[in-house]
Amino acid sequence: MDKISKKNWKVRLHDIIYEADTPAGKLFDVILLITILASIILVMLESIRSFDARFHRFLNISEWIITILFTIEYIARIVTVKKPLKYITSFYGIIDLLSTIPKYISLILGGIHALAALRALRLLRIFRILKLARYMGASNLLISALKASRAKILVFLFAVLILAIIFGTLMYLVEGEQSGFTSIPVSIYWCIVTLTTVGFGDITPVTPLGQIIAAFIMILGYGIIAVPTGIVSAEYSTRNRLGAPEKAPSIHLNTLSCANCMSEKHQDGAEFCSNCGHTLNT
Amino acid sequence: MDKISKKNWKVRLHDIIYEADTPAGKLFDVILLITILASIILVMLESIRSFDARFHRFLNISEWIITILFTIEYIARIVTVKKPLKYITSFYGIIDLLSTIPKYISLILGGIHALAALRALRLLRIFRILKLARYMGASNLLISALKASRAKILVFLFAVLILAIIFGTLMYLVEGEQSGFTSIPVSIYWCIVTLTTVGFGDITPVTPLGQIIAAFIMILGYGIIAVPTGIVSAEYSTRNRLGAPEKAPSIHLNTLSCANCMSEKHQDGAEFCSNCGHTLNT
Amino acid sequence: MDKISKKNWKVRLHDIIYEADTPAGKLFDVILLITILASIILVMLESIRSFDARFHRFLNISEWIITILFTIEYIARIVTVKKPLKYITSFYGIIDLLSTIPKYISLILGGIHALAALRALRLLRIFRILKLARYMGASNLLISALKASRAKILVFLFAVLILAIIFGTLMYLVEGEQSGFTSIPVSIYWCIVTLTTVGFGDITPVTPLGQIIAAFIMILGYGIIAVPTGIVSAEYSTRNRLGAPEKAPSIHLNTLSCANCMSEKHQDGAEFCSNCGHTLNT
Amino acid sequence: MDKISKKNWKVRLHDIIYEADTPAGKLFDVILLITILASIILVMLESIRSFDARFHRFLNISEWIITILFTIEYIARIVTVKKPLKYITSFYGIIDLLSTIPKYISLILGGIHALAALRALRLLRIFRILKLARYMGASNLLISALKASRAKILVFLFAVLILAIIFGTLMYLVEGEQSGFTSIPVSIYWCIVTLTTVGFGDITPVTPLGQIIAAFIMILGYGIIAVPTGIVSAEYSTRNRLGAPEKAPSIHLNTLSCANCMSEKHQDGAEFCSNCGHTLNT
Repeated sequence: MDKISKKNWKVRLHDIIYEADTPAGKLFDVILLITILASIILVMLESIRSFDARFHRFLNISEWIITILFTIEYIARIVTVKKPLKYITSFYGIIDLLSTIPKYISLILGGIHALAALRALRLLRIFRILKLARYMGASNLLISALKASRAKILVFLFAVLILAIIFGTLMYLVEGEQSGFTSIPVSIYWCIVTLTTVGFGDITPVTPLGQIIAAFIMILGYGIIAVPTGIVSAEYSTRNRLGAPEKAPSIHLNTLSCANCMSEKHQDGAEFCSNCGHTLNT
Repeated sequence: MDKISKKNWKVRLHDIIYEADTPAGKLFDVILLITILASIILVMLESIRSFDARFHRFLNISEWIITILFTIEYIARIVTVKKPLKYITSFYGIIDLLSTIPKYISLILGGIHALAALRALRLLRIFRILKLARYMGASNLLISALKASRAKILVFLFAVLILAIIFGTLMYLVEGEQSGFTSIPVSIYWCIVTLTTVGFGDITPVTPLGQIIAAFIMILGYGIIAVPTGIVSAEYSTRNRLGAPEKAPSIHLNTLSCANCMSEKHQDGAEFCSNCGHTLNT
Repeated sequence: MDKISKKNWKVRLHDIIYEADTPAGKLFDVILLITILASIILVMLESIRSFDARFHRFLNISEWIITILFTIEYIARIVTVKKPLKYITSFYGIIDLLSTIPKYISLILGGIHALAALRALRLLRIFRILKLARYMGASNLLISALKASRAKILVFLFAVLILAIIFGTLMYLVEGEQSGFTSIPVSIYWCIVTLTTVGFGDITPVTPLGQIIAAFIMILGYGIIAVPTGIVSAEYSTRNRLGAPEKAPSIHLNTLSCANCMSEKHQDGAEFCSNCGHTLNT
Repeated sequence: MDKISKKNWKVRLHDIIYEADTPAGKLFDVILLITILASIILVMLESIRSFDARFHRFLNISEWIITILFTIEYIARIVTVKKPLKYITSFYGIIDLLSTIPKYISLILGGIHALAALRALRLLRIFRILKLARYMGASNLLISALKASRAKILVFLFAVLILAIIFGTLMYLVEGEQSGFTSIPVSIYWCIVTLTTVGFGDITPVTPLGQIIAAFIMILGYGIIAVPTGIVSAEYSTRNRLGAPEKAPSIHLNTLSCANCMSEKHQDGAEFCSNCGHTLNT
């Protein structure tokens, strides 16, 4: 009885907002997911001039609806969490705030375009809902392979950058300004465009010597792409072979998050938070 | 004798149309393959304005010949199959119908261009003829490696899409409309063009800050291509090493398809359909 | 004495032309290599209009010198080989002839441009001289990995082609002629340009729907490049692990070619041709 | 006492300049790193016409400050090393000199642009400071994998070049000058642009036959990128598996360089130079 009485509205609301195991929690997550996606699509549509001109009123109202929904959610999250300050200063807390305030600020300052960037941060909120439980096993393996290759990939990217600076300077001297290589930084930009095999074609070499160097840069870029691929491939392959113990826990990942410290990824069947010791059986 | 008397014209026609083991069946398959290829080439040639203007009559007659041939084949397939409804509602049944009707509809509605798309579906018919028996072993291994990597590749593509949205929004704010980044969706399109190292060059950054971000996106795209490659490579490598039991059955694949339920890929020497138990020894 | 008397001028010339083990043979190979490279550079320079205008006389004389040198070599090869007809009808025999005759034909027909293509075949002659003895071990492993992956790579390329045809037709219907997608073949060409991440930018989608499909094609192309890479990587990796027995013979490859049947790649220390049994100790 | 008295100013200066183990040595390295980066950024900024016009005076003074700092460092390095001539003729000695003299020469000859290239060599100086101790293990493995694949990658690049020459000549004959394929060398350049999937779009085929050949080249380029990737991947994978003995020494790499012969990469705890036997305990 003591346990049940503790289940007051705050705890119940906490369960709905932070968990995905109860029907109410799942419903909340689905609604939130749709709201977030709608809010992102709104930002995009607003940027299309012709669309904004025709449906300005509709976009404005929709934006206000989403802002109010986000505000309610933000307040609810603060109220139900045991340590509100910890939530507010957490990564997701800041993202949640930045997703909400732009519209309020626009009320004071008028529609400043730069705020669209802040609203784009809403996208990051998707990660919290999905919790990516299903693909966690897949991405865990991937992330650990990338982490193990980090140092080598950094060395590689550093080498690419130095190559770009050297060849960029060379191309600036060879081609000169009349071909579009107007300065060394622009030449380096062109060199990265070429080395990565993107090849916009906004700047192209026109002198024979420039074209020979460009051909060399392309073949270089074509060849060295093998390096990061080889690294990740080998690291991933090693991990995949030893994979059994790493894969095992990922299957039984539960979606509970601690009401006290908000840490997640507790083991299935765990009754206490592995981070702060607070009970998970709310 | 009882067995032989069952071999009436329907069964014989079924053998010719659905099997590739008898001389008549092989001949039918070769003629059908040529007809399909001819029909696809016809659709292509018709789309070339100058060609259509000069050879309109020839193209029209050819299209009618192919349509009539496809109609005969479609009816023959329905007649010879034990469960016609099952064939009509099957994937290949729908493709076969959609490959045939556009010309009849054009008779009623006049030459609507959108029907060319339906006729392009004829291409999918090739798969049924080739049955790809020879390369089945090769592609089986490939497909199973791709299937095993599916979840990881989805996580990767999702990550690419989120990167494109974030950087697309950023580039829209940095470059603005005068550089061609007219809206966030267009910026995201540009970002995908750059991340995948395609680099059309129809939209290119012109501000120094935009070029720095673009360079970063390119190097990112150049680096993360290693991820899907590494995944498929490792999965395929694992499969290849354990490959013996998987490869074995693929060698002895026969080309019989059940007259009752149309299921294929029966084991060599099988006398009954593995799906419905119907005899295969027609 | 009997053996020495057999070493008449024909045999000695054969040794010089076909072998690389004697000082004279090496010298011949070096001179031939230089001549071939010079002949290729000549063809290139001739195609540069401004260069040809200024140095026409020089280019013409040089071309004649090379043609005469090639003629002498061609006659010498026929004379010294035991079975001239076999040489003349062999791959290298035809290449040697086609490298020589264009100039003679131009004497009769005047300078027809199409003959430049034939002269470009001279490039293939390089392979015979280099014999690639040093890198044979490296390329053997590579070629055997590619051969083993052949069927899978063909399935992959076939899939790419079908994707290109389907999406090409789709883009033709979506974008239409005003965007540069003037016909289905042109759309398919554009689709291959995009799928392979080349991205010329001569044709680009302008409608929102076209750009969405294009983005999808790009991500597809970016993703499926992993497939051939994974295949070759895994095949090569397997071969590399088992590699010892395969690598061993490649180290002791000699450069002798049989005077009778012209087969090469005899084992080191072999005294008789492994193909026809003719003695190699000329 | 005998040992301590030997520690005169020259030895102490040598420690500061050449080592990174003492606080003074670390401080020197950090200052030098900042100076080098500043000098590179200066060269870049100078090349931007609008920036140079506005801040010419500032750039000139900064360049003189850096030149003087580099001069002092260069003299200090000569003075403190036991064999100055060996330093001056060493790779880093020449780089150090070439990084310093351009400004002095410009004093005599005026600001010649070509000297910017020499100053770009300053970038190479970074390697000496970083000593890349931390990532050495990572890059060692990488470099050894690349070295092992060298012969195979050369064969591959040679094949790419020959393909480019053959298809370049073919495209020149097919497309002709009106499409931008003005000469065989330009066609080869285009062919490399296409084969490496860079695709600038400055030159594009316009004839149907040219587009078919171009499509073939693209698919070829898209497919053969698998080859270097597969090689590096397999080599790296093998090395990674056997990796333990190779990785081990890289962890305990010290940063001492011999005062006598300037060789580096001594084992941790080594008291004598592994190259010349000179004591390392300065």
